[in-house]
Amino acid sequence: GNGRMGVVYNGNAASDKLQFSSRIRAVFTMSGETDGGLAFGGTFRADNAGGAANGSAGNIFISGAFGKLAMGDVVGAAEEVIGDLPEIGFTDLSGGLVLNANDNDVLFLTGDGNIYASAGNPGALYTYSTGGLTFALGMNDGNNNLSGAAFDDTQAYSVGVKYAVDAYSVSLGYEVADPSVGTSAKHLIIGGEATFGTTTVKAYYGDGSGAIAGLKHYGLGVTHKMDALTLKAYVKRTEVGAADATGYGLGAAYSLGGGATVEGGIVDNNVAGSKPRADLGIKFTF
Amino acid sequence: GNGRMGVVYNGNAASDKLQFSSRIRAVFTMSGETDGGLAFGGTFRADNAGGAANGSAGNIFISGAFGKLAMGDVVGAAEEVIGDLPEIGFTDLSGGLVLNANDNDVLFLTGDGNIYASAGNPGALYTYSTGGLTFALGMNDGNNNLSGAAFDDTQAYSVGVKYAVDAYSVSLGYEVADPSVGTSAKHLIIGGEATFGTTTVKAYYGDGSGAIAGLKHYGLGVTHKMDALTLKAYVKRTEVGAADATGYGLGAAYSLGGGATVEGGIVDNNVAGSKPRADLGIKFTF
Amino acid sequence: GNGRMGVVYNGNAASDKLQFSSRIRAVFTMSGETDGGLAFGGTFRADNAGGAANGSAGNIFISGAFGKLAMGDVVGAAEEVIGDLPEIGFTDLSGGLVLNANDNDVLFLTGDGNIYASAGNPGALYTYSTGGLTFALGMNDGNNNLSGAAFDDTQAYSVGVKYAVDAYSVSLGYEVADPSVGTSAKHLIIGGEATFGTTTVKAYYGDGSGAIAGLKHYGLGVTHKMDALTLKAYVKRTEVGAADATGYGLGAAYSLGGGATVEGGIVDNNVAGSKPRADLGIKFTF
Repeated sequence: GNGRMGVVYNGNAASDKLQFSSRIRAVFTMSGETDGGLAFGGTFRADNAGGAANGSAGNIFISGAFGKLAMGDVVGAAEEVIGDLPEIGFTDLSGGLVLNANDNDVLFLTGDGNIYASAGNPGALYTYSTGGLTFALGMNDGNNNLSGAAFDDTQAYSVGVKYAVDAYSVSLGYEVADPSVGTSAKHLIIGGEATFGTTTVKAYYGDGSGAIAGLKHYGLGVTHKMDALTLKAYVKRTEVGAADATGYGLGAAYSLGGGATVEGGIVDNNVAGSKPRADLGIKFTF
Repeated sequence: GNGRMGVVYNGNAASDKLQFSSRIRAVFTMSGETDGGLAFGGTFRADNAGGAANGSAGNIFISGAFGKLAMGDVVGAAEEVIGDLPEIGFTDLSGGLVLNANDNDVLFLTGDGNIYASAGNPGALYTYSTGGLTFALGMNDGNNNLSGAAFDDTQAYSVGVKYAVDAYSVSLGYEVADPSVGTSAKHLIIGGEATFGTTTVKAYYGDGSGAIAGLKHYGLGVTHKMDALTLKAYVKRTEVGAADATGYGLGAAYSLGGGATVEGGIVDNNVAGSKPRADLGIKFTF
Repeated sequence: GNGRMGVVYNGNAASDKLQFSSRIRAVFTMSGETDGGLAFGGTFRADNAGGAANGSAGNIFISGAFGKLAMGDVVGAAEEVIGDLPEIGFTDLSGGLVLNANDNDVLFLTGDGNIYASAGNPGALYTYSTGGLTFALGMNDGNNNLSGAAFDDTQAYSVGVKYAVDAYSVSLGYEVADPSVGTSAKHLIIGGEATFGTTTVKAYYGDGSGAIAGLKHYGLGVTHKMDALTLKAYVKRTEVGAADATGYGLGAAYSLGGGATVEGGIVDNNVAGSKPRADLGIKFTF
């Protein structure tokens, strides 16, 4: 399980900008093996047990020499190989702003977030690794962080490939969300990561076409470790035609050992009228 | 816990007849013993923890020389001794059609399904076995698969007896659902089961009276095992006055060992306009 | 985990005064320790996992030489040091009547019950003990059992102190609920407990001012143990200006060992037209 407790500051709140925040959660992890040596298992949390029971939360997998097939609330193939920028703050200060400006999460068309998987109709993700190469293939209901409902509950496909060697990796993803009515949205995204000693740098560039032509987004994240202390930062920019937004985050985490970490951070963006959000607290893993 | 993943085909769906389907669930099983040697315990799933906390899901029991008393989402006494036909497919292809035609579940008046137990007002089932004889006595809110709301939240009573000797058993059940307004519904049902080597055959015949006079239903199920493979089939017919429906199902399960089973099946019925449903996937127990 | 099964009688019900009642629940308890020796942990139930994941149910804490800080669905500081009267019956016969007359729970302004903690905005409770002294300090959204909505979602503060020596203790609590509009509600409450052999007696007196001027409430509870049998009783009176209500409860519990207890009780009050409620059943801990 895991938990956290602390205070959260939201500059955009009308009142009560400073709030307590806490949570505690249990994680179920299950595994088994067939007589023929195939591994199977899955994971979900007690608080999303209802969703896990209908395929819209958690996930279940079977794996073997053929690779790994997972179903449920899985990420898309592009997100699988590219991932997100570093999480900031003990609450992962994220969510809510126009153009996805105030969030360490990179924008993906498919499988990004647990709202894409509808009850009884989960997503599927197939992955296969050999040497430094990883291939991923995803299929699910589409969801677009940018234009929400338009691409909900449509069929979506994603493919990703990642090549990692020593301390470097480069990834390429392509996704298509196919609404029942209207034009398909297409998204090509490239990412790279490099580790220099205790510093890891990550960058990505994504480009939309079809229904989301004119979308460009790119960002950079840095993680730097010094013994028990980890510093994290990101900057990202999203452009949709003439509109654009730049967001940034800065955080620090200090490990107390035994699964406890003091963590805090601040995120902000250049959208007119938007104010910073920040938090400080303790995270636990049990 | 348990889980499953695969694909489901629903011929009756307007679009997207073929869908992914997956789920993963955790099961809590608890037990204890008093100083005097009475056993007690219960079981429920994480995804119905809310219902288990108010008596409308899961169940709890105490047992001893006097028999066993269980409360919560228990079956009625008739279902306890007669049971259902074999489950078809990795998702237990069931539910939804007129006259209960497309479902391996036998129709019972009381305690059939977890909607009969209302919050804070669970059902109760008492069972006692001696030699080959089993007696069952149930009491709960009534629920009728056939006419739904009319018998919801009414008091219901059921009694059942089963006699098993060697590879044969015969069962008899009688149930009464007593609505606050109007006539009682009564249901007499007889069932039998016989095992020949690795083949088990099961049959039942049920007859309604009172508010459900004119209801007749009967069916046959067969389970045949060949090493890791199990074949399953059923046919059942429900008549209500002049109306009738016949449903059938055919399925196969292949055990991979370690708790993993590949399973698939098809169900259909003779209702005009109704199309087959089928599935194929893997089931896991952890 | 824990569970219970039995029958409940509610004299105030329009019909079906006698009902079955059962439940079964799982409890998650988590703990850890930092390298520097701080203990941390938390607890919640499977059926309130959703609330625990947003801070409105369960709780999480960190403790050390500085004391203990807990967040989530914690009690207020006054309730922490004074507590409630003995629980009556296997279902804790409580709830629902005017002036809180029919309930072993003592009336508190802050943190009383899990409705005060809103999603993402949990309560916080700090406690520190040294010798026989305990200090408590609480802060959370306000909630008033008496006038409900008026004090919901307002900031609230509470402070408590308890001194225990041998078989005696005395406690003092003070709470303020500060609505966004209108007058603050203030509440001063004093309590004491004494144990004579196998008998424990508990008493309290509380007095409201500000928005709840005219509120007075006081009560007495007794718990008496004889081997496996425990007898419990309480009487309490609440006055609001000219209105008043007196409630009382009487119960008995008999331990069967192994975590099973037969328990029953009756509660009633002097409110015109109100009838007794009673229950009898078995409680289990697993």
